[in-house]
Amino acid sequence: MINDLLIENIDEDGQFSKTQQEEFCAYFQQKTITKKTFLLEQGEVCKWEGFVLDGCFRIFTIDKNGNENTLYFAAKNWWLMDIDSFMNHKPSDLNIQALEDSKVLLISQKDKLTLYESIPIAEKLFRVMFQKSIVAWQRRLVRNHSLTAKERYAHFIGSYPEIASKLTDRQTSSYLGITHEFLSKIKKQLQIQ
Amino acid sequence: MINDLLIENIDEDGQFSKTQQEEFCAYFQQKTITKKTFLLEQGEVCKWEGFVLDGCFRIFTIDKNGNENTLYFAAKNWWLMDIDSFMNHKPSDLNIQALEDSKVLLISQKDKLTLYESIPIAEKLFRVMFQKSIVAWQRRLVRNHSLTAKERYAHFIGSYPEIASKLTDRQTSSYLGITHEFLSKIKKQLQIQ
Repeated sequence: MINDLLIENIDEDGQFSKTQQEEFCAYFQQKTITKKTFLLEQGEVCKWEGFVLDGCFRIFTIDKNGNENTLYFAAKNWWLMDIDSFMNHKPSDLNIQALEDSKVLLISQKDKLTLYESIPIAEKLFRVMFQKSIVAWQRRLVRNHSLTAKERYAHFIGSYPEIASKLTDRQTSSYLGITHEFLSKIKKQLQIQ
Repeated sequence: MINDLLIENIDEDGQFSKTQQEEFCAYFQQKTITKKTFLLEQGEVCKWEGFVLDGCFRIFTIDKNGNENTLYFAAKNWWLMDIDSFMNHKPSDLNIQALEDSKVLLISQKDKLTLYESIPIAEKLFRVMFQKSIVAWQRRLVRNHSLTAKERYAHFIGSYPEIASKLTDRQTSSYLGITHEFLSKIKKQLQIQ
């Protein structure tokens, strides 16, 4: 069965034939994750690449003092995994937790390799997808270095209003790398202006 | 002419034939960059992907207050470009400056696309290279969120002693995202221990 969201995401220029679309989708298994459930826990090896069909996930680490540090979020139409753990078969530094009831499509490492062999055009499409992913990481780092916390907050709620609306203040502040108190101050300042 | 460093970097499993190695290398132009010269300046469009043969580069942004923020460094055997500018044909947010006399191999966007068509295995090799690059970005973000400035400094000089030795304290502090004064304090603490 063809999943339109998945196909549109990976093959926006329509390079797959109908048969390739069907074969591509057949490698993925759908999984339902209820709110607050972990798709991956720190210390586990990540054995899949995931694509979010519905819902939203928070990706975070817990440091040695027990503090949660949110790295990013993955909403509908986004890919998610711990690529370091997946590629290097090492225990993950990340937790991936559903912020709400969610649905994902997962593909195992073995099936991903088979997919590349049987649908050669997939190499190009994932190469481009990984390039886009690096663009997103680079933009994030540029923002972290060149914007103030207030500007980063304004950018986040402006760019991802749906994700921002699902978060507690504690989750938002752990994503921005600021204290809960500082976030309250920023929110007050933005309301006044 | 085959450049061994370039071939070993991209094709560590030896999947290229001799002819493919020669063809691959022929797409790249060598360029010598003297110390302090810019390979890319903020506002320019990045029209190439680069591979460092020798020397070292600093990649940084200048924010609206005129402060330099160092994002990363690229030494011998590393790839470098502004992937956001390169992919999206937009003016770059980055400056790429030689820290010392350096040599790079550059490939244009047009030649890169021709390369993928004429050497299909290159799709896979660059797909894997981009995955490794995402791993590096992810590790950087995890460190930024979960380590203290002192731990990040210790990790940096432990992992990249050669790069660290080429830097002024101001460049190191702008990479760690801390003030020059705070770096001096950390260095004193580490000497005492």
